[in-house]
Amino acid sequence: MYYAVIMAGGSGTRLWPLSRRNRPKQSLKLVGDRTMFQHAVERLSPLFSIESIFTVTKPDYVPLLASQVAALTTDNFIVEPEGRGTAPAIGLAAVQLRRRDPDATMAVLTADHFISDTGGFRVVLETARKVAQDGRLVTLGIKPAFPSTGYGYIQQGERLDVQGDIPVYAVKRFVEKPDSGNAERMAASGDYSWNSGMFIWRVDAFLSEVKRQMPAFYAQLAEVEAALGTSGYSSTLERVWPDVAEQTIDYGIMENAPNVAVIPVEIGWTDLGNWSSLFDILPIDANGNILRGPSIAIDTRNTLVVGEKRLIATIGVEGLVIVDTDDALLVCSKDREQEVRAIVKQLKQEGRSGLF
Amino acid sequence: MYYAVIMAGGSGTRLWPLSRRNRPKQSLKLVGDRTMFQHAVERLSPLFSIESIFTVTKPDYVPLLASQVAALTTDNFIVEPEGRGTAPAIGLAAVQLRRRDPDATMAVLTADHFISDTGGFRVVLETARKVAQDGRLVTLGIKPAFPSTGYGYIQQGERLDVQGDIPVYAVKRFVEKPDSGNAERMAASGDYSWNSGMFIWRVDAFLSEVKRQMPAFYAQLAEVEAALGTSGYSSTLERVWPDVAEQTIDYGIMENAPNVAVIPVEIGWTDLGNWSSLFDILPIDANGNILRGPSIAIDTRNTLVVGEKRLIATIGVEGLVIVDTDDALLVCSKDREQEVRAIVKQLKQEGRSGLF
Repeated sequence: MYYAVIMAGGSGTRLWPLSRRNRPKQSLKLVGDRTMFQHAVERLSPLFSIESIFTVTKPDYVPLLASQVAALTTDNFIVEPEGRGTAPAIGLAAVQLRRRDPDATMAVLTADHFISDTGGFRVVLETARKVAQDGRLVTLGIKPAFPSTGYGYIQQGERLDVQGDIPVYAVKRFVEKPDSGNAERMAASGDYSWNSGMFIWRVDAFLSEVKRQMPAFYAQLAEVEAALGTSGYSSTLERVWPDVAEQTIDYGIMENAPNVAVIPVEIGWTDLGNWSSLFDILPIDANGNILRGPSIAIDTRNTLVVGEKRLIATIGVEGLVIVDTDDALLVCSKDREQEVRAIVKQLKQEGRSGLF
Repeated sequence: MYYAVIMAGGSGTRLWPLSRRNRPKQSLKLVGDRTMFQHAVERLSPLFSIESIFTVTKPDYVPLLASQVAALTTDNFIVEPEGRGTAPAIGLAAVQLRRRDPDATMAVLTADHFISDTGGFRVVLETARKVAQDGRLVTLGIKPAFPSTGYGYIQQGERLDVQGDIPVYAVKRFVEKPDSGNAERMAASGDYSWNSGMFIWRVDAFLSEVKRQMPAFYAQLAEVEAALGTSGYSSTLERVWPDVAEQTIDYGIMENAPNVAVIPVEIGWTDLGNWSSLFDILPIDANGNILRGPSIAIDTRNTLVVGEKRLIATIGVEGLVIVDTDDALLVCSKDREQEVRAIVKQLKQEGRSGLF
């Protein structure tokens, strides 16, 4: 059977002050009146039934996320005691699925990306499932919209297959986040996709690669798997997990896996990594602004205003991100958004726990 | 005797969103931990005793202002049913003082100007009192700090007198707010002062000029004066005042009075007309910022942050005025502050009564 596994354990500090430790990005209504997590679950229907959708997250986030999608129960959550990077999170989901269904195929999906073409997305997921049946690890590549230095890239090799109208390629190599020159070259070449962090594979094929490339982690996983369905599961997981080494799926598995395929897709994908990314998704007014919440904008251009209850008045400003919450306000130049993390870091250092 | 009359009836819309209809500028703590009204009263001591200080204001503002200076009682307030401009406000104070003391000299002062040299200010007020004893209408001129187009100017004529080290001049003419070319010329000439709106005169001399130049208003004032001390005073004032024509003291009296003197002074005077004027008064940090309230400023320059309880974080911004209150936030380019009034006007038109 085919299962969806939504990765939803991150906190998204770059969307401060709206995102907080206890109010992660996936729980926010950034697009329309649905939270990112609601979008992530709802776009899977009707390809996946609710019983075949699992969410990997932190213990703290389970009640918050469960409350956002009425059909979900705690059975739909795979809880990591603490985040150890994407490789352990996906590994934990994989052993749970193997126990449930030795023939399982899993789609590793995200809650912090927006996808406008949800129909196309489901077609791609179904296509990828077919490609994965011979044991390939399939990754979804995003056709570059601009020469981003913020994503890793995937270089495609020979064409493997065509499913419907959708070409599938062998992966030649994974490239880490490039400098701007290399980004320009790769984005222009037509041979490279952005690494979306979405993967489709048979669970047995994936776990074989874990065993081969990450044997210590595989042993830890096996210990957890053996406790599945027993009363000792939680205590085993909590004993084992702190010793699991942090690792990303790209570095831990994908870069050295022999049998990786990429499907370059155009599905209206946007990484909601920072506030400016909303300009790629939300309607922009005649002055280039996005104004959410009560606002009066006089001679204001290219500016994002995200408010809640309070009136926000702007006069003669350009290229700003203004995000207003009950207890904190951000006024940031659009080209300096990467430094929002520095604010969160400072708040952590100062122990101002309510504010980050 | 010498009396101080503080004009405190205005609302100061340019300091929105901190100033509101029900929270006028003079009631705000803009400099230090004292309100503008507290500064205005306290800098008069010890020259004026509390019994000789009167405040002209609106009915609504009496409780607010009285609560800010413990020594004041309702006897210290002269209440206009509604504002009709500076000439009627000063005229009403003058007849009240004439009834109390036919030999009164009055100093017309302001609550929306900051004065750093309060000792020098009191010396000037005492000097002006002496100059006024022969019937002259004395105005305090501010030596121009820059070629402002926001103030009226006073051109001085022959030197009349020197009191202590302080020269006194006849006024040659009053000049309305100039264009920038004329402002440059006047500020550079040494013959012009800014019109501060502060005046010192014998009450009898002033009322003679009112009778001569504004006979209709003088008749209205006489009607009010006749009711002073009777049970019919309030009803008389409320009947007469709506028919009083709006008029400024400059246009109604000063520009055509024959016997006007100016004392150009340097007393650290600043008109707190808008947010940027705080840059002339408050300490500025190494990056040119004024940060009031909880804030984190990363690469922020030449920016004013006025907050209350909420954290305000700024990144990569320059030349902004950011003023945060419980129910409204302003983010404004420093050189566009005159348009704050447009916000208030729009809120009025929309009937959003809590917000202006």
